[in-house]
Amino acid sequence: MSPRQYLDEVRARIDGRLREIFDQVEGDTTAMAPDTLPVLTAARDLTMRGGKRLRPAMLFAAIDCVEPGAHPGASTDVGAALELFQTYLLIHDDWMDNDPVRRGAPAVHVSLARHYGDAHLGACSAILAGDLLSALVHELVGSADLPSARRRALVHTFGRMEREVILGQCLDVTHNDDIQRIHDLKTGSYTVRGPMLLGAAIAGASDEARLALERFAEPLGLAFQLRDDVLGAFGSEADTGKPVGGDFREGKSTLLVRHALEHLDAADRDELRGVLGRRDASEAEVLRAQALVERSGAREHAESVVSALRERCLAALDAPSLLPEGRRLMAGVAGMLTERSK
Amino acid sequence: MSPRQYLDEVRARIDGRLREIFDQVEGDTTAMAPDTLPVLTAARDLTMRGGKRLRPAMLFAAIDCVEPGAHPGASTDVGAALELFQTYLLIHDDWMDNDPVRRGAPAVHVSLARHYGDAHLGACSAILAGDLLSALVHELVGSADLPSARRRALVHTFGRMEREVILGQCLDVTHNDDIQRIHDLKTGSYTVRGPMLLGAAIAGASDEARLALERFAEPLGLAFQLRDDVLGAFGSEADTGKPVGGDFREGKSTLLVRHALEHLDAADRDELRGVLGRRDASEAEVLRAQALVERSGAREHAESVVSALRERCLAALDAPSLLPEGRRLMAGVAGMLTERSK
Repeated sequence: MSPRQYLDEVRARIDGRLREIFDQVEGDTTAMAPDTLPVLTAARDLTMRGGKRLRPAMLFAAIDCVEPGAHPGASTDVGAALELFQTYLLIHDDWMDNDPVRRGAPAVHVSLARHYGDAHLGACSAILAGDLLSALVHELVGSADLPSARRRALVHTFGRMEREVILGQCLDVTHNDDIQRIHDLKTGSYTVRGPMLLGAAIAGASDEARLALERFAEPLGLAFQLRDDVLGAFGSEADTGKPVGGDFREGKSTLLVRHALEHLDAADRDELRGVLGRRDASEAEVLRAQALVERSGAREHAESVVSALRERCLAALDAPSLLPEGRRLMAGVAGMLTERSK
Repeated sequence: MSPRQYLDEVRARIDGRLREIFDQVEGDTTAMAPDTLPVLTAARDLTMRGGKRLRPAMLFAAIDCVEPGAHPGASTDVGAALELFQTYLLIHDDWMDNDPVRRGAPAVHVSLARHYGDAHLGACSAILAGDLLSALVHELVGSADLPSARRRALVHTFGRMEREVILGQCLDVTHNDDIQRIHDLKTGSYTVRGPMLLGAAIAGASDEARLALERFAEPLGLAFQLRDDVLGAFGSEADTGKPVGGDFREGKSTLLVRHALEHLDAADRDELRGVLGRRDASEAEVLRAQALVERSGAREHAESVVSALRERCLAALDAPSLLPEGRRLMAGVAGMLTERSK
């Protein structure tokens, strides 16, 4: 099976379960408080609009590295929970970061502000949409049908991952300058390490297998973040669902920007600095910033770092404690994650 | 054991567990992202400042109605989770409602805004403080050490309660006029019904016992809300930890206010209407509103309704499926809940 076919299969499995969950919750919500349906609908739309389901794909591949096909019901529920968790985080983060667009459409706080005709009500109901998804996440994780040691490991692994992401976001919104730690906590934790460790918990992995999965997760998380940075700087709106060069306007201190600031001459550096962090930068200015970053060699540098990280990933996968079936799937997903164009 | 002694015992048990939990999480947080400690500290301070622990007291009493002393470890964890859940809700709600004071000190979004020197950062970090508590709640509930059928019932009961509260808050912030439904979802659900049903789940209650506990919860939830309304209108700042008559300034449509508007003559009614919902009403105006509500007979009416509801509670407790030991404790807590002055 090609990585593409594997991802298609995962998507069908996860999207099917997500639809079941939302149908059920819509029924409950209609009975409890029908006037709140727009809030649930906004959360559902954003969840279903995010199509790749890479986190569940990594979760299932991690399980297949240890005990292929173990506990399919619990695995599907935890995979769906990862997607709902992602939506919850995006909704809260977009409001915090004042990001108007997500996945090619208005962010939830923006669409709910329109619905209620008031920015504060939009913000409140977006926070509540996230809170509601969080409640669903925990019903799924807490009720996963697993032997009790695995279930306890699953709940604690999920809780720890969740706390890492939240603390990472705390650092991010308060403009902490420990970028590497923010990336690790905010992105690495639940994009790669989390799915690996959750899979290890579900499959009852030995310490050795769990450590091998963690060793694989670390370079992959870094590579994923770098790919994200490259897309944030150079990706098209059609691919990323966000305005071109948004990272420049937000003034994100990415590896690309740091490399450019170190390698450009003084005049170019000053010009780039004049665009970074300016929400009102014109399209021409953003395109100029792109050109400067490109000229500094930052993009080429980032691509070479991604390649090196990918090699480290694949080497880490070559561990005797991991089964070949899962390793093959995992290598495919890792390739998609680091080569993706959106 | 008197109700007062029982509550003291519950408080010691819950506060001890909460301190253990926060010490543990503080250690983790120091290792993960020490710069975020102010956020955790704000959440801890608010949790420890709320002293009565009535929800865990009801939880334990419900368990003792069915299987006295069942699963003490899981019960303590779920009791602590109820308190953390309450803090999480208060933090998010206070920001949404723009309430500056909670439990006699600045609300979390206010104290964090001061800490970071910025209102939006205060709001973001308060939301994240709530999110962090929510993660802890679910680690406690999901890892409760119980036989698997009881654990599954516990997780689903908690999840449903959580969704009810969130939808109730959605209705509240969007100014829905179904006050009774808002009370039931936002307050009744996790103040009385939730602890009853969680206790029933932990103790493996029969359908009959669970229904008896629900029949008890319904009038008690209403009585609790009414007592809250009386305190919100007439309570002193020393007792409630909130400015006197805050409910008038917020324009809450309580039973007291509705009764007063129906029973006052036109001139008094207009005067009362002139104060309701005005955040900038003077102290003299608030005192005048109090006097008008008192004169309308609304307070007396509310007290008589509370008495009638208390009778209904006690009658519901007189069910053969509930054990006398738990019923005695429960009657004591119900008395404290409906007679409390803060």
